[in-house]
Amino acid sequence: MTTHEHIVKQFDVELQDLKNKILRMAAEVEGQIRDAVRALQERDGESARRVVRKDVDVNLLEMEVDENCIRLLALRQPAATDLRFVAAALKINTDLERIGDLATNMAERAEALAASPQLLPAIDLDRIAHEAQEMLKDALDAFVYSDAAKAERVLERDNVVDALFLTAFKALVEAMKQDSAQVERSLGLMFIAKHLERIADHATNISEMVVYLVRGTDVRHRFSVEERAHRHE
Amino acid sequence: MTTHEHIVKQFDVELQDLKNKILRMAAEVEGQIRDAVRALQERDGESARRVVRKDVDVNLLEMEVDENCIRLLALRQPAATDLRFVAAALKINTDLERIGDLATNMAERAEALAASPQLLPAIDLDRIAHEAQEMLKDALDAFVYSDAAKAERVLERDNVVDALFLTAFKALVEAMKQDSAQVERSLGLMFIAKHLERIADHATNISEMVVYLVRGTDVRHRFSVEERAHRHE
Repeated sequence: MTTHEHIVKQFDVELQDLKNKILRMAAEVEGQIRDAVRALQERDGESARRVVRKDVDVNLLEMEVDENCIRLLALRQPAATDLRFVAAALKINTDLERIGDLATNMAERAEALAASPQLLPAIDLDRIAHEAQEMLKDALDAFVYSDAAKAERVLERDNVVDALFLTAFKALVEAMKQDSAQVERSLGLMFIAKHLERIADHATNISEMVVYLVRGTDVRHRFSVEERAHRHE
Repeated sequence: MTTHEHIVKQFDVELQDLKNKILRMAAEVEGQIRDAVRALQERDGESARRVVRKDVDVNLLEMEVDENCIRLLALRQPAATDLRFVAAALKINTDLERIGDLATNMAERAEALAASPQLLPAIDLDRIAHEAQEMLKDALDAFVYSDAAKAERVLERDNVVDALFLTAFKALVEAMKQDSAQVERSLGLMFIAKHLERIADHATNISEMVVYLVRGTDVRHRFSVEERAHRHE
């Protein structure tokens, strides 16, 4: 092997390491969301506490991924697609860490809700959770397989979650108006629904980065200003 | 001037351009927050609509800043502090764009609230807005002057905003419980307070990047897991 071939090979290994680390982080936060949803559905305190504990690993991974990106930029000076990959990794990394934070907060709220008497669910949280989880899964698959078409389909689905959130929001407002004893519980559910909608927003951000990575075009802000504002509210 | 000196000078010019663009974006989003708060305080629909219009500029700037960063990395292959600066710029850019989204959503909510009859304010939104704005201003000053000590003082202030939000949250819950006619209005104020708290979180993120930029150390996740989760909830 020539020195040049060795350097190229070493670079590929480092890029693959970076990708693997992001995928490990993705698996962690997907597990956190699953556990947070289970904590809520099954009033399972152990699941909730597991989410909180896992957040330590996710936070460490976030710092490692950024460090890897910087090292790659400094030592390998990547160009073209490889450079876009590293830049996208820096952004996706932040999205994944924020998703971990949202799942952690959901788990804490689920634990608080478990302490209050169970009431009939006013909203279809499972459906919102399912949609957000699917969007995240597809965004990450699109990233792994550099599948821009799949990423674009995720972008189109963001308004589904927004609509589901709005329906849940209205139902919870009605519940609060009809019975003041339901105010706190309804607010807890509202924040959980909002967090799921924000997870879907992060899946959208990741998908935008995948499109940028594969096609080299920036598809952010294709939507109207109003839509964009709602997506991140 | 030698060719080498020319290249170095050209690089400095490009870095300064990047910095200026980020500062222009920062000025835009600071203006958006100011206008959104005014829209709320003075029931000023024109201020609210100005925030929404400005978001187009902020979104364009976000894409330009990212493009500049990628171009700098590709053509100049910066090292050490300059490399950290570009990596930090990629992250800070995202925070600024999200702040613009939050201000836009606040303005839309302020406009909706202006349509309903004015009630006695249950919470001190001005105080939360003031704290969040000061944190953002100081974080951006710390960025401009590479002042890590100033950035660290911003990090210490995040719990002040969190505590203010919690007080506001409790007061709004009480208002909703006591009078079901206040549910929607209180929720509107709650989301605005939450958005201001999230702006303070973004100021914290920017400050963490400034410390990283100046000192080369990653100060994220210094706090306990629980605190972190609350900061981003």
